[in-house]
Amino acid sequence: MKNTYMEKALHLAEKALGRTAPNPVVGAVVVNKGEIVGIGYHQKAGSFHAERIALNDAKDKAKGADLYVTLEPCNHYGKTPPCTQAIIEAGIKNVYVSTLDPNPKVSGKGIEKLKENGINVEVGLKEEEAKRLNEFFFKYIQTGLPFVAIKGASSLDGKIATSLGESKWITGEKARNHGHSLRNIYDAIMVGKNTVLSDNPSLNCRISGGRDPVRIVVDSKLSISSDANILNLNSEAKTIIATTTSSEITKQKELAIKAEVIVVNEGDQVNLKKLLEILASKGITSILVEGGATLTGSLFSSNLVDKVYFYKAPLIIGGDKAKGLIGGEGFKHLDKAIKLKDLKVEPFGNDLLISAYVKG
Amino acid sequence: MKNTYMEKALHLAEKALGRTAPNPVVGAVVVNKGEIVGIGYHQKAGSFHAERIALNDAKDKAKGADLYVTLEPCNHYGKTPPCTQAIIEAGIKNVYVSTLDPNPKVSGKGIEKLKENGINVEVGLKEEEAKRLNEFFFKYIQTGLPFVAIKGASSLDGKIATSLGESKWITGEKARNHGHSLRNIYDAIMVGKNTVLSDNPSLNCRISGGRDPVRIVVDSKLSISSDANILNLNSEAKTIIATTTSSEITKQKELAIKAEVIVVNEGDQVNLKKLLEILASKGITSILVEGGATLTGSLFSSNLVDKVYFYKAPLIIGGDKAKGLIGGEGFKHLDKAIKLKDLKVEPFGNDLLISAYVKG
Repeated sequence: MKNTYMEKALHLAEKALGRTAPNPVVGAVVVNKGEIVGIGYHQKAGSFHAERIALNDAKDKAKGADLYVTLEPCNHYGKTPPCTQAIIEAGIKNVYVSTLDPNPKVSGKGIEKLKENGINVEVGLKEEEAKRLNEFFFKYIQTGLPFVAIKGASSLDGKIATSLGESKWITGEKARNHGHSLRNIYDAIMVGKNTVLSDNPSLNCRISGGRDPVRIVVDSKLSISSDANILNLNSEAKTIIATTTSSEITKQKELAIKAEVIVVNEGDQVNLKKLLEILASKGITSILVEGGATLTGSLFSSNLVDKVYFYKAPLIIGGDKAKGLIGGEGFKHLDKAIKLKDLKVEPFGNDLLISAYVKG
Repeated sequence: MKNTYMEKALHLAEKALGRTAPNPVVGAVVVNKGEIVGIGYHQKAGSFHAERIALNDAKDKAKGADLYVTLEPCNHYGKTPPCTQAIIEAGIKNVYVSTLDPNPKVSGKGIEKLKENGINVEVGLKEEEAKRLNEFFFKYIQTGLPFVAIKGASSLDGKIATSLGESKWITGEKARNHGHSLRNIYDAIMVGKNTVLSDNPSLNCRISGGRDPVRIVVDSKLSISSDANILNLNSEAKTIIATTTSSEITKQKELAIKAEVIVVNEGDQVNLKKLLEILASKGITSILVEGGATLTGSLFSSNLVDKVYFYKAPLIIGGDKAKGLIGGEGFKHLDKAIKLKDLKVEPFGNDLLISAYVKG
């Protein structure tokens, strides 16, 4: 049953994916004599943590009960008081934790505090699942960079458009809907300027109950127009334009009316690592890159990618001049190519989604 | 149990894949009072058919027994006497047939003959499986062309080599071994001249118990050397070089010492449809095309492809100049792209094999 309770806690946490940045998603379940008496999950940075919500939900049934929580309870004052204190005060007897806090400064401290207060603590239940669920947060805390995923849709032979540039639509509705469900959980969507110029996308999340991600355009010389859809949406989320000192000040000012313009560095090309550092400092923990092939190529060359989502349609497009999924220079030598692991294949309608992680 | 007996017959047939051209593979099982009393499969064109072998195996236990056979028994004198006659003479009571003979001239005639002789006949058991097992033969009989499959190995982003041409090895050993098992069942392997010039492959089948396929090189102007590996193998199978009138007669004569040189047509380019017709007339019912990207692109453009086997390695190579799986002109408009069906994904080591059929 322990696994079942922790799975319940993981499912609760999952509900808040994409809503808690820069915090992790966390779920908690209070179990008293085999009965679930309280549940909770962290809904938003600044609001109560999962443990406290579940304990409040359990009321006096928390006394002598077991607490299942997907991430180590915090032991410090942040925007809310420490969860360890709430757990001790509620009279919890056993605490089951999936995984420790990834922040080396506090990792283990919450557990220590609970144990000091006579609470029995067990760590590691469903640990792999808990780490995957918070993969954005773990990357962000451990490296100071957002978790970066590349999303692409191609024919089975790897073409994202015909040689004439036709790309609407390579994949079917179910795959495209799944793409929107990704926009719903990533903090931000990033595209290159060519994608804005050629496709004029809105980059919003068009699923029921979804929320829009922050939109980021990489545009070293500011060639996009202030009429672009991305700058004229009715959306709760902002648009960020990343540029360099080589863009014109007047254009910077013009675009700054509708977006946040960030001059990342000097020179002709946006330094992608520096851009990611700036975005992380703004609390963006995860970025879904939706093209184009040149931007994704540069992110791979700079070794900044964590995951890929490749939708493959049952089509052959072919053609030496038709664009492939990853453009730019590419890796000239096979032993330098990016290695992937944990491949997962899922069908969406007639299409396949192959997702994989970049080997560390 | 009927399904189980027919599955046994299908497994028997499968043993001879790649060995019976231009005949189909056929398996047969004789069952008397719930006991398998005879089995057989057609091993080679010119030798006994499956039914006769199974009946001979069953001896007098065939009397009053049931016969399971994966393809309609023949009712005509070919290199061997008609199977219907053997079935009638053996005293078989019930005949279960997976699928009718695809040849419209004889389809249904075998069944008719058996029924006329008081034998109960049922058609359709495991029919889909039986048709798939003989997909080479069905295509060949119904169209006069060989079944053509494209085999390719690429990174997950669809590149068959780096921009510098490195391609050894993109996929791992298990995927490459599976590739050899395909060579073992296709009548012939086809490549373009560039593949011979750049990779100098042997195109033989290097698995235990395997047999070499016929090797076919498409070389419109005869630019391969008579020193190429493909022309200097210790192999029971021959090499065919397909060329045009634009190649030099002296070169034709030089290569004809080591291979069969076929001048397919006038002009600069081998007419691929005409070549396939010639190969079919030589009893080649199936061809596995192993590149290069230009040849496979031309086969797709000419709508001559039936199936694809794409091995995908967990790698990102990228690069606008790195070759993709299918080269040439490609399809300029999405609605003209080749549509695939019946996608199947299988893991081989760390790689994936995605196979699919071209929609008719």
